[in-house]
Amino acid sequence: MSAPHRGLGPHHDGSELYVPRATPRLGDVVPVRVRVPADNPETAVWLRAVRDGEPRLSPARLESSDQHERWYVAELPVHNPVTSYRFLLDEPGGYRWLNGRGVFARDVPDAADFRITVHEPAPAWMDDAVVYQVFPDRFARSGDDHGPLPDWALPAQWSDESIAAGPGVAQQLFGGDLGGIEQHLDHLERLGVDTLYLTPIFPARSNHRYDASTFDHVDPLLGGDAALASLATAVHRKGLRILGDFTTNHTGAGHEWFRRAQEDPASEEAGFYYWTDREPGYVGWLEHASLPKLNYNAPHLVDRMVRGADSVIGRWLAPPYRLDGWRIDVANMTGRYAADDFTHEIAREIRATMSELNPDAVLVSEHFHDAAGDLAVGGWHVNMNYSAFTRPAWTWLATEGTAASFMGLPVPVPRHGGPSMVATMRDFDATVPWAVTRHQWNMLGSHDTARLRTVVGTREMQEVAAALLFTYPGTPVLFAGDEGGVTGTNGEHARVPMPWEQVEHGGPGWDAATFETYRALIALRRSSRALRDGGLRWVVVEDDAVAYLRETADERVLVLLARAPWSGAALPSSLGTVASNLYGGADLGEDLVLPASGPTAQVWRLS
Amino acid sequence: MSAPHRGLGPHHDGSELYVPRATPRLGDVVPVRVRVPADNPETAVWLRAVRDGEPRLSPARLESSDQHERWYVAELPVHNPVTSYRFLLDEPGGYRWLNGRGVFARDVPDAADFRITVHEPAPAWMDDAVVYQVFPDRFARSGDDHGPLPDWALPAQWSDESIAAGPGVAQQLFGGDLGGIEQHLDHLERLGVDTLYLTPIFPARSNHRYDASTFDHVDPLLGGDAALASLATAVHRKGLRILGDFTTNHTGAGHEWFRRAQEDPASEEAGFYYWTDREPGYVGWLEHASLPKLNYNAPHLVDRMVRGADSVIGRWLAPPYRLDGWRIDVANMTGRYAADDFTHEIAREIRATMSELNPDAVLVSEHFHDAAGDLAVGGWHVNMNYSAFTRPAWTWLATEGTAASFMGLPVPVPRHGGPSMVATMRDFDATVPWAVTRHQWNMLGSHDTARLRTVVGTREMQEVAAALLFTYPGTPVLFAGDEGGVTGTNGEHARVPMPWEQVEHGGPGWDAATFETYRALIALRRSSRALRDGGLRWVVVEDDAVAYLRETADERVLVLLARAPWSGAALPSSLGTVASNLYGGADLGEDLVLPASGPTAQVWRLS
Repeated sequence: MSAPHRGLGPHHDGSELYVPRATPRLGDVVPVRVRVPADNPETAVWLRAVRDGEPRLSPARLESSDQHERWYVAELPVHNPVTSYRFLLDEPGGYRWLNGRGVFARDVPDAADFRITVHEPAPAWMDDAVVYQVFPDRFARSGDDHGPLPDWALPAQWSDESIAAGPGVAQQLFGGDLGGIEQHLDHLERLGVDTLYLTPIFPARSNHRYDASTFDHVDPLLGGDAALASLATAVHRKGLRILGDFTTNHTGAGHEWFRRAQEDPASEEAGFYYWTDREPGYVGWLEHASLPKLNYNAPHLVDRMVRGADSVIGRWLAPPYRLDGWRIDVANMTGRYAADDFTHEIAREIRATMSELNPDAVLVSEHFHDAAGDLAVGGWHVNMNYSAFTRPAWTWLATEGTAASFMGLPVPVPRHGGPSMVATMRDFDATVPWAVTRHQWNMLGSHDTARLRTVVGTREMQEVAAALLFTYPGTPVLFAGDEGGVTGTNGEHARVPMPWEQVEHGGPGWDAATFETYRALIALRRSSRALRDGGLRWVVVEDDAVAYLRETADERVLVLLARAPWSGAALPSSLGTVASNLYGGADLGEDLVLPASGPTAQVWRLS
Repeated sequence: MSAPHRGLGPHHDGSELYVPRATPRLGDVVPVRVRVPADNPETAVWLRAVRDGEPRLSPARLESSDQHERWYVAELPVHNPVTSYRFLLDEPGGYRWLNGRGVFARDVPDAADFRITVHEPAPAWMDDAVVYQVFPDRFARSGDDHGPLPDWALPAQWSDESIAAGPGVAQQLFGGDLGGIEQHLDHLERLGVDTLYLTPIFPARSNHRYDASTFDHVDPLLGGDAALASLATAVHRKGLRILGDFTTNHTGAGHEWFRRAQEDPASEEAGFYYWTDREPGYVGWLEHASLPKLNYNAPHLVDRMVRGADSVIGRWLAPPYRLDGWRIDVANMTGRYAADDFTHEIAREIRATMSELNPDAVLVSEHFHDAAGDLAVGGWHVNMNYSAFTRPAWTWLATEGTAASFMGLPVPVPRHGGPSMVATMRDFDATVPWAVTRHQWNMLGSHDTARLRTVVGTREMQEVAAALLFTYPGTPVLFAGDEGGVTGTNGEHARVPMPWEQVEHGGPGWDAATFETYRALIALRRSSRALRDGGLRWVVVEDDAVAYLRETADERVLVLLARAPWSGAALPSSLGTVASNLYGGADLGEDLVLPASGPTAQVWRLS
């Protein structure tokens, strides 16, 4: 699709070098900067900002200039809650636009304009967070007795393989519990993650618990409310954070509200669902009868679910649990049905509840696809970034013929070159403000996908993948077990019980070298503010190698990722010289010649 | 940017060949078709449709197949008011997506997905309409005495040049009136247009009248209410239609509401405007003190302006005027100010008023830029299509070094090749449903731009331009005078008084040959349903030539436009043979070899 490129073009993003005040207030005027290589032919630069629906052009001023580049600055009036803008480069061959996707020599729609918003971004702790996702049934057993198993459960041995599809897939119960997680917090600390994200913990009729039967209590099979209080207290005592997972879109068919609704059509709860003439008589999520969809036309459903201290959202933010935020399941469909669309209203209500009860809480949406329309309206802080990260990364990193399924598409994971990966990342990144991009939940897999190791095939390729995850803008999120290279061909199969015996004493099924790689890369990220807060400039985009800069006002870090041997490349001298090798150990020399080896991951700090 | 191409790829658009029911009702299931050339390697085709925010894939069925192409059909559930969809081509090298911009071998955001909407499209008469824009001060004088000139007016001779900028630009008054228009309706009939669009006719303090001092009466300088009643009656008697122009965004500073507001801060009208601490004490459109912006937070402003029979919108739809619709000035900014955004609400209110009083009325927005977010919400039927038509067409057609200004950009009109023009058209077209695209107001100039003839330079190039206008999907709109090749370097300079002496008797300033060209091209469009209702497939996209097909179920028309001599091209035999040459006279021969000459415009009907 796109041609390979090396070198640097005109650049802007929302990071501190270009936008000193990333979250302004309505009416503020914010300076925005653009840098242009010295050999670019522009005769003038203009800012184009949309104001009340109308783009206006204002001149940018040349602020500084040296033999390498020119910096321009323009004044951006933050006139609307979301203000979109781009730059015009007046050049002898005709003007070019610079927007979030790059530089265009013709007119392009506003969809990829840069954006700045007055909505509060994710809390400050997310700047540095590394999230560790745990699927409670598969993480660890405490050994506590939680009473008899429910009748739907198919008890499994801890060493059993997770069922990938078909009968038993949702009933196979390994018996992990919250006490088990609490016993293994040292594993999280050793790895270096700081945020524990739990998939649902409410009672349900499945091992995944996305079909809650109540939102009032923690599943007794997990240890009940007391176990959550204990876990949360232990987490917080260690300076870590803990996040919940909530199905605002639906309940289980076994939910107390749904039972009441079915028993009594005059009940308030009967208004909480969509009833139809077709089987099974109500609307289920993706037609699943087990997951009746919630109907937010009901006057009080918002109160019960998301508004205020007594709502589900509110109650679990309060002591003794003090959740540090929520991941919202199927956020993209929440409140949407036919002509109904309450999604933004619900998201804003959750934010308001959080602001009231725990202003430091984070709100993360699940939207596997194009979340552009939902991410700058003051609702979800950030999204699980399958579109701008997971999918494009997989297409570049996947091994030919991988057994991994491709996240809902009826086709194998394709294998693309770097230009395709980068263009896709830019296309999707460009739809959201930088304040979102820099906190997006980047994953290389989750409980809903195949395992990374199955996608990429080898320890060496997983290192390249992980280096991307931990050096890219956004919040790195890993699914427990990835750090040991566990495998799985689809989301269900990937819910592997943590092999603690092997984690602690070595053995098949746990790759201790991969664990060390993850530990090193997480430490690397913690050692560099540029890797956490810096902007992103692509320097090399070739089929088998990509390189990019992460830059803050005081730090410039260069990342090289190669999936295979490639031609190598000499970088412009304008980038400076190597101050230190931060990861990978390759010597760049004085001329910044990138090594042609691969697979490899290399990170340098430049001076 | 894009490489030249020849030949045909996988194709879908919203026209009748692909979507038999273009305006379904909520809950309908609509068959959607895609055609794929015989040499394409797909092994399967899937439909991806977004439902309640979630894309779902369903298989398309091979419906027919011959040596040239395969047709697939899939069932599209119209589950939401706007349903977006695209196709997945499962191919050996990896899947490709087909969306409104074309075919992509990697993931792309939803912004360019095809869209179908349950909102009523523009009225059926727009299918065949050709619109003639008149700026009343500059069209014709009736000779009637309308009393003394207002004190702001600078009277001009009919033969004077329009002032392009600076003092007098808005005050230079030529004295055209509605009676003058009525006297020249035969000119419209001779040309073949059927819809008269008048820029504002309310009293004001300028020649353009976008600064109304009342919405209750027609400007006495134009002949007053009686002149409009007479003109509208004459127009309707001839089977033509007449449209008004309304500033929902602002009034004039001399408006009776604004005067009352300034005199009495306790008045209802004081709530109609935005007051500030800065000079001049209120918000003006683009900071013009003469155009105070309306504030739709005011409880009754919607009633006065747009809601119901007594509103401005409603009153002029009623007898004796019976306007056939409204063009809305600055529609993109209407109701938008800082955190306020009432635009969609206002647009829907206008539609509701029209549905009640004249269901056959059309509602056209002015939005010079990216109107994507405003065009599928049940408000504006269509937009003045500067973005997807005027601008890209100019960049292909403009003569090097034209004196024409480029619609608000601080740069000259650039000169691009065909691939750039077509990519831009597709980018913007792809943001709206086909039901909008097929009625969009396509222009090659207006009272707000330089004159087409000044842009393209010659009679021959204007013919190429006009051939594009009258053979392209959408509603052709021309600014009175274009048909005689009048000139002007910007919007103000382009408001040329119609040189009736020369129109009728010949002479400099009126190109009778261009008039014949327009007449012939309008007649051509009327002779071919494919040119009015057909889909659009690009066949040749090269720097100096483009060719496209317009196709209905029963007709296939081929259009070739060349701005300069080019290489020529042999088209695939799958397109059939020439049944007749409809315009231009070139003989294609049996092998469909496009002639290499240029500038030229050629149109053939294929069998």
